[in-house]
Amino acid sequence: MASVRVFGSPASAEVARVLTCLFEKEVDFQLIRIDTYKGKERKPDYLKLQPSGESLTYEDGKNTLVDSRAICLHIASSYNDQGNKDLLGNGTLERASIKQWLRTESQIFDPPSSTLVFYLAFAPLEGLDIEEEEVKKRKNELEKVLNIYDKRLDEVGFLAGDKFTLADLAHLPNIHRLMTMVPECAAMFKERPNVMKWWEAISRRPKWTRVVELQKEAPAVA
Amino acid sequence: MASVRVFGSPASAEVARVLTCLFEKEVDFQLIRIDTYKGKERKPDYLKLQPSGESLTYEDGKNTLVDSRAICLHIASSYNDQGNKDLLGNGTLERASIKQWLRTESQIFDPPSSTLVFYLAFAPLEGLDIEEEEVKKRKNELEKVLNIYDKRLDEVGFLAGDKFTLADLAHLPNIHRLMTMVPECAAMFKERPNVMKWWEAISRRPKWTRVVELQKEAPAVA
Repeated sequence: MASVRVFGSPASAEVARVLTCLFEKEVDFQLIRIDTYKGKERKPDYLKLQPSGESLTYEDGKNTLVDSRAICLHIASSYNDQGNKDLLGNGTLERASIKQWLRTESQIFDPPSSTLVFYLAFAPLEGLDIEEEEVKKRKNELEKVLNIYDKRLDEVGFLAGDKFTLADLAHLPNIHRLMTMVPECAAMFKERPNVMKWWEAISRRPKWTRVVELQKEAPAVA
Repeated sequence: MASVRVFGSPASAEVARVLTCLFEKEVDFQLIRIDTYKGKERKPDYLKLQPSGESLTYEDGKNTLVDSRAICLHIASSYNDQGNKDLLGNGTLERASIKQWLRTESQIFDPPSSTLVFYLAFAPLEGLDIEEEEVKKRKNELEKVLNIYDKRLDEVGFLAGDKFTLADLAHLPNIHRLMTMVPECAAMFKERPNVMKWWEAISRRPKWTRVVELQKEAPAVA
């Protein structure tokens, strides 16, 4: 099997998603990271937290990929015989459902959650202005998507069925930030019992908590 | 000022020495690290702990250096106007004393301490054989060098005089390992009150504890 190399910081949600997938699939890989240290300033590297794929590059032999969800799909199907074999589901129907939920995550869940993390957790640290209108709009969007999730998770334990799959995995980095850094958004989760039960199940998986440990070494912070 | 880049892992004693010096001098820099993750094994990356300079590269504009003590001397003299201005001492006599203690550290202190860390902390984790004769010989060497240090530190607070300098800084990574990973060697330090008082003073410096935090993210450990 070709050697896998990931370029980026675990502090990036994009990178964290890919690391979780590699750990779940028990893939050997190298992580190449560049952390910038400023002599005097305390400077959280919030740019790494943007939802764009700029902070992530994945190499697997000759292939180079930059989108974290596409990379996770690639890993799960390339290494189908090792590690967690349920990530891509079993059968075409389940796989289609997983892909649909990955699209929901990237198109409906990620935009409000990334923006809220940016404005409510990182902008204050940088002394940046908070666009109140944008925050209000994004909070409404997040409420709506969480209502859909709470209904779905009343029927099944995980988004694509009764097992943890890529559909759930893709949500880990941003929900972790909202839960740990943005109390007003954490409250939105806590108000929805099915969402909360799901979050508790997926967030205590050892492969994810390993990524959280990697994130704790704050890059570029004095 | 040219941009500084360090290639290596903070887990390496060589790299840790250079990072401490950069933090003391409040230099802006980038740390580029490569960590290897094995799918199933727990694999401490003990090779990084060898005293050779292989695991470290330092770039400052067009210059490339690989020896951690030479790099520290270069940093302290290139950035003489910023950060901790005492690292290289004041005056030619003190500077000569610092250079002499750096040689003592690299030629007399480092060989037994690195070898003892390797055999008593890392080899057991890897299931490698311990060469008892070598360990015994190195323990004797360490006892002898600590006797010299204890006498010296009865006269002055730090190796090269009354201030913390590169002479002290260079000792931090290996003593930290002996104190935290090799109880029988930690005992040798604890038996010598002047050495112990010195260790307590130098090991609680915030620039060093910052490096210890960076080291805590254990690379290549499941």
